[in-house]
This record gives sequence, structure tokens and C-alpha cells, in this order.
Amino acid sequence: MEKKILLTDCPDAKGLIAKITNICYKHQLNIIKNDEFVDHEQGRFFMRTELEGRFNDETLLADLDDTLPQGAERRLVKAENKRIVILVTKEAHCLGDILMKRYAGALNLEIAAVIGNYDTLAELTGKFDIPFHTVSHDGVDRAEHERQVRAIIDSYAPDYVVLAKYMRVLTPDFVKAYPRKIINIHHSFLPAFIGARPYLQAFNRGVKIIGATAHFVTDDLDEGPIIEQDVTHVDHTFTADDMAKAGRDVEKSVLSRALGLVLAERVFVHGNKTVVFK
Amino acid sequence: MEKKILLTDCPDAKGLIAKITNICYKHQLNIIKNDEFVDHEQGRFFMRTELEGRFNDETLLADLDDTLPQGAERRLVKAENKRIVILVTKEAHCLGDILMKRYAGALNLEIAAVIGNYDTLAELTGKFDIPFHTVSHDGVDRAEHERQVRAIIDSYAPDYVVLAKYMRVLTPDFVKAYPRKIINIHHSFLPAFIGARPYLQAFNRGVKIIGATAHFVTDDLDEGPIIEQDVTHVDHTFTADDMAKAGRDVEKSVLSRALGLVLAERVFVHGNKTVVFK
Amino acid sequence: MEKKILLTDCPDAKGLIAKITNICYKHQLNIIKNDEFVDHEQGRFFMRTELEGRFNDETLLADLDDTLPQGAERRLVKAENKRIVILVTKEAHCLGDILMKRYAGALNLEIAAVIGNYDTLAELTGKFDIPFHTVSHDGVDRAEHERQVRAIIDSYAPDYVVLAKYMRVLTPDFVKAYPRKIINIHHSFLPAFIGARPYLQAFNRGVKIIGATAHFVTDDLDEGPIIEQDVTHVDHTFTADDMAKAGRDVEKSVLSRALGLVLAERVFVHGNKTVVFK
Amino acid sequence: MEKKILLTDCPDAKGLIAKITNICYKHQLNIIKNDEFVDHEQGRFFMRTELEGRFNDETLLADLDDTLPQGAERRLVKAENKRIVILVTKEAHCLGDILMKRYAGALNLEIAAVIGNYDTLAELTGKFDIPFHTVSHDGVDRAEHERQVRAIIDSYAPDYVVLAKYMRVLTPDFVKAYPRKIINIHHSFLPAFIGARPYLQAFNRGVKIIGATAHFVTDDLDEGPIIEQDVTHVDHTFTADDMAKAGRDVEKSVLSRALGLVLAERVFVHGNKTVVFK
Repeated sequence: MEKKILLTDCPDAKGLIAKITNICYKHQLNIIKNDEFVDHEQGRFFMRTELEGRFNDETLLADLDDTLPQGAERRLVKAENKRIVILVTKEAHCLGDILMKRYAGALNLEIAAVIGNYDTLAELTGKFDIPFHTVSHDGVDRAEHERQVRAIIDSYAPDYVVLAKYMRVLTPDFVKAYPRKIINIHHSFLPAFIGARPYLQAFNRGVKIIGATAHFVTDDLDEGPIIEQDVTHVDHTFTADDMAKAGRDVEKSVLSRALGLVLAERVFVHGNKTVVFK
Repeated sequence: MEKKILLTDCPDAKGLIAKITNICYKHQLNIIKNDEFVDHEQGRFFMRTELEGRFNDETLLADLDDTLPQGAERRLVKAENKRIVILVTKEAHCLGDILMKRYAGALNLEIAAVIGNYDTLAELTGKFDIPFHTVSHDGVDRAEHERQVRAIIDSYAPDYVVLAKYMRVLTPDFVKAYPRKIINIHHSFLPAFIGARPYLQAFNRGVKIIGATAHFVTDDLDEGPIIEQDVTHVDHTFTADDMAKAGRDVEKSVLSRALGLVLAERVFVHGNKTVVFK
Repeated sequence: MEKKILLTDCPDAKGLIAKITNICYKHQLNIIKNDEFVDHEQGRFFMRTELEGRFNDETLLADLDDTLPQGAERRLVKAENKRIVILVTKEAHCLGDILMKRYAGALNLEIAAVIGNYDTLAELTGKFDIPFHTVSHDGVDRAEHERQVRAIIDSYAPDYVVLAKYMRVLTPDFVKAYPRKIINIHHSFLPAFIGARPYLQAFNRGVKIIGATAHFVTDDLDEGPIIEQDVTHVDHTFTADDMAKAGRDVEKSVLSRALGLVLAERVFVHGNKTVVFK
Repeated sequence: MEKKILLTDCPDAKGLIAKITNICYKHQLNIIKNDEFVDHEQGRFFMRTELEGRFNDETLLADLDDTLPQGAERRLVKAENKRIVILVTKEAHCLGDILMKRYAGALNLEIAAVIGNYDTLAELTGKFDIPFHTVSHDGVDRAEHERQVRAIIDSYAPDYVVLAKYMRVLTPDFVKAYPRKIINIHHSFLPAFIGARPYLQAFNRGVKIIGATAHFVTDDLDEGPIIEQDVTHVDHTFTADDMAKAGRDVEKSVLSRALGLVLAERVFVHGNKTVVFK
């Protein structure tokens, strides 16, 4: 008995749940869990179906294609660990959290490699027997640096690329190479404090809450589809540094929750938004 | 076009989603929203389906009965405001919150009447033009008191009875008269601090969090199926009274959230637990 | 025995706590509760001292003035209910919450009057026997409208003016008339979604959290010192209307918490920030 | 310039803040931060004073002893990293979190050693170059096992002993050896679900929230002074295992927050309760 996940994303129409679940039933697949959502404003239907049984992918997908309306996207994916490559700069907290959660069995994923533009986190990565590649941006232009990073990423053929406090802005070319595959943690509660040094901005504004945002990366800096957000309370006793420290706790927990959701195939991207079946 | 909600609760079997949604499709009903859950341990299937269209209740239910496994419960209910009767003693916060939320349009329900064993809250209830009945427990025995209260409740034929800080313990006879129809707010995070004066218990134990629990009332005092819970942080500066005050905020918000869920037919009771489709 | 609160706000210097508490001790005043904070970056000292005893305000303040550094502000205020005037437009939730919390004894304040630019909330206000003044903005220019509103406010000599979803922008003249005395609830987690229709902005951006901000009003729209903020989680199933509805719950709870803090003299304003002793 | 923390805990009396801060001022010590609390019910005064300057501990404490009322406890401690020994069994999440937070600089402490009754976590501990001692309970009686564990603990002379999911009950003798020095993380929101298998108890009760409690260990199992608690929401889709998994996240975050508070000397123990200056 195998487990797979069927992901359907198509224009809304009458009877879609019945039609899709009928096909599953006809194929003698058992539905373990089913989630669906209709965006009535956009007229779009989303369904995530966890299936168990003996799969004949080809005929199942053919049956679906015969049935679903024009413009449908459907994917049948294995319910198994995804492989990620992590990009970092110097800060340990997000990388450390992912490494430790995987070690403790709290995150189901395979970390193929970590790439840093500094070697600061090589030692930490090495503790967990994961390859670390330093690709310095020193003395090379942006295009060449990204070419080198992409070559290493591609050599691992990851399902997703995770920016765990990677402090360089990606070019549109880089982003285009991994559509809906790059997950970033932004150190603010977007759309507040877009841009550099958000904790200093937050401190100067005197906010009582700071947050973090995990999102897919698109061409618009800090504007990609949001996967997960959370906040923590601060007060007048917090310096900008204290805010950054408190923020790091939120950053790592938001990033690892977002990773858990994406890697379990619970996230649909729809325009600049996400549908997340928790 | 009418809206109704189909609630199905039955032993799990293959193809149930397909079968039920097929019947809806055959009846040309549009599924606005669908939620389902399988309790794999108990082998029980729960589904809540919001439907829109022209309903022929009789044939729809007949089709379902032909299809669903033995032991199935199914209900087709109107998606409209439910009628409640509220029982109170002296504390205003929960009653006031329900009255005000309904006034501001934040809770869709009809308050048929309020019954108090004191007349303390008659004035507040009167401000909102809702009948208030004082049924004093003074000088009557418990059975007679409950008989009087039940007579008033029954005269309004409510969908639910809400105990909004009603400080008297109900007899099994009373509870049996309104199965799965009585909602209580308990002033603690059950199962901590069962029984009397929970805030004093919490103060004496030096807890850092206090909470509240909304649950259906069953024969076991404080042991009915839990609908909703929430907590708030306290610290060493809180006296027992401060805790009670902080607790009142949690109590009223938990009760009104539980009411919103129950009245929208989002809550299934299953043994001593609930399935809540949020 | 009387209770008063001493509020000190001055340039930092060595021995301030000792000096101030010595003076209190010399005056045989008992310190019920003391909070202090030093903003080391700005070199500013803040202290809030709850005192009990027999007060000779004149000599106490004179002793303080002899002792405190140049540029010190100190106030000795009675620890009793403050009087507020509330400005509203059409939405009931914030006003209703304040009315009900005061009725239930959960907010210690005196509501002198409610002023609306529509009469929508006259009925609700009347239920609680509080004067309601309709000052329509129809057919009068902004200056004249504000003149009428200010005349009514001033006739009640309130300690604070509360904008409980008052949907008109105040002119600098109005703001200047009540320095650090106007409290507003802004329907977003500032500084995200500044300006009009924040819930529609939030919906369009696909955020997973929405919030509300209570702040003092200054000349810069939505830029005054923040008193309190909070958030609630939303997801893809929320329409812009659902977000607004969820937001209303946060708005009213943030506003009433901010009110509680300000009215208990727990909030210092310092430049564009606040020091809040909770 | 040195930094120390003065901790005062004594019967309440008039003028204590003035007296203590006067002594600090006389010693030309600068107060960086001061927190105090009076338990009016018990008539007890608590103050934590962060001081900076040149310290003459002997004369400072002598001056305090001359001034403070009978029954006063006062300690002057260095504001530097504390040393801990961690006891574990098999679960990695709490130990891993402490190791990683210390590595990333988010917890200021020195981990002297880890002791396990199994060797399961030796490898993880070794990655961070910290000594791990396996003391099997196999084939030895409880007294002998504890004797061996205590010998190792004592060889490191730690400030605190941290039970990071150490699944053995300590004898009163063990507890007495480290008064107010043993910190435990309990896998439930005490006092709910005292005893074994709390997540299974929580699952069976159908709660909507689970929690964790960090507390000092005393003779009464699960009854010591609570330092910190937190909760997370669960629902009907959670199996007992899912609850345990969600619970582990709360456990580790509550334990590391409690550690941060205790190690920064922010926690007073008072009877069976704590005063925590955050």
C-alpha cells in the first residue's frame, strides 16, 4: 500500500468534489484526508487529497484530465521526505533550528547541502554531517556569484531552496530558475518595515509587537506569496538589539512551520497569495 | 436559492465522500464548503457540507439513507439563526458580551429570553428588550426550582440553552431533558481546578496561566465534551481577584466563540469529545 | 488615607530612585507599587510610584523640585476614575465594548458623553443613560464641524478624548487642543497598511495575521506614539469582510486595554514612543 | 566597572526601597535596572537591583544587614553566566534546544555536562564538545543510581541542575541536596494531567489546548513552584502522538524561557510560588 497526495487547482465548477472523489473511488484508492477550498471571488477550486492504495498514476491522471475543466492543474506527488538546499550568511539560529528539528525527528526533510556566502556556519553544518559549500561573493560580480551558487544547487536537484537568513538579494534570473521553489524568512511582519534593518525601524517606531514572515520568493523583493507569519510582544525596555534577539525566535519558528507546511504539500500558490491547508 | 447544511456522522467506509457528494450533485445542489474528518482510531466519519440550491429534503435524505452505512446519523438543517435561552446568576460579563455582540451583529443568534435565579441582570437584559425571568431558588427545593426553569425554557422552544455563569449545579433530569443542547462556560482550564473557586485554587498554586472552558453539559459535572478553551497569562502580581478579573475576559471570549461554532452547526459530539470544523 | 500616583520623567542621573523614594519616606507616604525605567540611549529616567498616606501636595512637589535635575517633569495625580468623551461614527463594536465593560465593572472610568457625526449610535448610548450628541458634518466645513465638536467636548472637561472608530481625520488645530489626550484605535497593525481600507489591503496582500493599534493622536496621521497592539491569525478562507470582522474583535480589545493603561496613569509619552508600566 | 545583582527578600516595611537604594547610592553604585514587588497578603517585599560600579561586597552587605528587617534574605551575585548540569533520558528536543540556543548565543549559560540514564543522547551532546556521562539505572537500586548521578553532578559544582525530560522520579534525598536548584520541565499544563502519560490523558479528555510547565523540584512530585508555563492549541485531528509532538515544541520553549529567567537571577522562590521579574 502506497501513499500519495493529489493536488487539484482549477476553475470552480459544480460537482468537482464528487467527480474527483469518484475517480479515486473507481481506482479503489482510500481517502485518508481531504481538504478543499473554493475562492468564490476568483472562481477557483483547490483540493488536496491524501490517498492510500495501489496507484496507476497514468490512468488516474488521464481520468482526471478527462473530467477536470480547462485550465486545471493537477499533481500526484509521493508523500515522502522532500530534499532541500539551504542558503545562509552568518546567522546560526534558523539553520540551527532546522538542523536540530530534523535531528530530533520534528521535521521530515532531507538536507542535501548548505551553501554560505561566508564560511561562518560551516562548522555547525559539519556537526550534522551535511556538506557545506562556501561561495564567497568577494571579488566576483553578482551574476558570476549566482552562477556558482546555482551550479551547486542544481547538482543536488532539490525540491526546494530555503533562504535561512541569506542576506543577499537574488536577481530575477535566479528567482526564475526556481519558480515557487524558493522559501525565504523575512525578519519583519510584512508589509511593515519592508527593506533593510527592520528591527531598527521597529525600535524607532516604538511598536509593541514584532514579527516574521515566511514567503515564496518572487521578483518583487519582500512581496512574494506569504506562507506563514507570527509575532511576539515587545515593550519599551527592548533595545533594537533585544528586538532582533526576540525576533530571531519568531523567525526560526515561522520558517520551520512554513517548511513543514510546504514540504507536506499543504500550500497552493495562487497569484500572489497562498492557500494553506493546515 | 436556499442554503442548508448537511451533517453526516457514520461508521467509516470507502468512498463516503464520493457517495455523499454524488447525491448532492444529482440533486443539483452546489457545495459552498465541505469539511470532513475521519477518526481512524474509532473508525468514524464526520462530514459537514454547506449546500445551496432548491432542496427536496425528503428525497435527499432518502437517497442518503439508501447509501450511508448502518449506524449513520445525518441531519439537514437550515443555515439560519438559532434561538437560545440564557441562564444566569449575578455576573454580567458573559451575558453582556453576548447581548452586545448580537447587537453589533457579531453573533448570529436570537436570544429568546434570559432566566436568572437572582434579578441582578434583569436591568441589563431589559436594555436590549429581551424578556427576563427571575426564578428564585429561595424556599423551593431543587426539583421544584428546575421544574419552573424548565417550564420557561420550554415555552420558548430554544435550539440551545446557554449557561452564562449560572452558578447552580443541574440535576441529571434537567441535563437529560436537553441532550447536547446545554452549553456551559467553566471558569478554569479544565481539567485543572475542577470544582469550586478555581481562581482561588489557581492563585494558591501559583500558576502562570489561567483559562476557561466551554463545554456541553452532561451528567458528569465539569466533564462534558469540550467545545473551546483559551488561556491568558498571569503573574505573581495578580491577586486571586485579579485572576478572576482576567479570567472573566477569557470566559466571555471562549463562550462566545463556542456559541458561534455550535450555532453555525460546526460541532459534532462524539462520545465525550467534539469534532469542530472551524 | 488617600492614594495618589507620582509620575516622574527626567534626565537620568545617579541616585534618582533613592532621592525620590527618600522624599516619599520623609513625607511618611507608603509606596504600594513602584516602577521605573531608564532609557539609557536617550539618558532619560521614568518612574511611576503608587503612594498611600496623608498628602501635602505643595511641600511634596517642592521637595521634588529641589531634588530633581533640570528638565524634570513630575505630576502627582489622584488614583481615581478619569472622565472621557468618546467620538464615534457608525460602528458599534468599540463603543459597545467600552459601555459594557464599564457596566460590568471591568473598566474604571466615567463616560461623560458620546459624540457622533451620525446618530447611528445614539440608541446604544442611550441604553446606558449617557448623553449622545450628534454633530453632523453635512453641509458645514471642517473647521466649523470641529469647532462644534470641540465646544461639546470642552463643556465636559474630560481627561481624555477617545476615538472609538471615529472615521474623520482631525485637523492639527484639533489635535493641538488636546495634547497627549486623544487616544485612537487604528484598524491595522501599524505601520502596515497605513491609510484607508486596511482590511482590503490586508486581504489583497494575502497576510496571515491582522492587527490593531491604539495610539495617541499627533499631527502625523497614524504616526502617533503607540500604546498597545495586538493581532489575530487569519487564513485563505477569510474574505476582506471576514478580516474586518475578525479585526473588530482585536480593535475593541486593544482599545480597551490601552484605555485601561492610560487611565491608570501607566503610560508615559516620550518623543514618538511610549513607556508603559503594565 | 563591574556588574552585580542584589536580591532582597524580606518582611515588608516602610521605606525599604529608599533605604536599599540609599545604601547603593552611598556606595556610588549605579542602578541599571530595579524591580520590586510587595506581596501585600503575605507582607513580603522582593527587590532585584542590577548594579554597576566598584563593589566592596563586605561593607555593602554589612550596611544592608544593619538596615533590613529581621528575617531578611539578601544575596549579591555576579551578573555572569551560570553553570548547569543537564539530566536526560532519551528525548532529544529539550537538550537539543538548549545546546543550539547556547551555540547561537541565545542562552547565556555554561553547560558543564550532560548525564543520561541511557546513552541515547551521547552523540548529540558530543557534537557540541560537552561531556556526556551515562549512568544506567539497570541492575542498581534507586539509592545507588542517585548516588552515582550526584557524584558526577557534584564534581562539576553547577549552579543549577536541569531535568530536560529526565524520566525518573527523584527521591527526597536527591531533591534536598539541591534546594531550589533543580529545574524540571513537566509535559503538561499543571495542575492538569498530573502523573504519567499526560498527552494520552489529554487526548482521552478531548482538550483543545495542551501545555507545559517549568518548575523547581520539591518533594511533592509535580507540585514545586512554577516558573513558566505555556500552551498550544490542538484540535480533533490530533492523535495522542500528534499532541505529544506539538507538546514537545511547547516543552522546549517553556524550559528555555524558564532557564533564561532563573539564570539571570530573575526568579525568587517564596513558599510554593515564584516571583518572576521579566
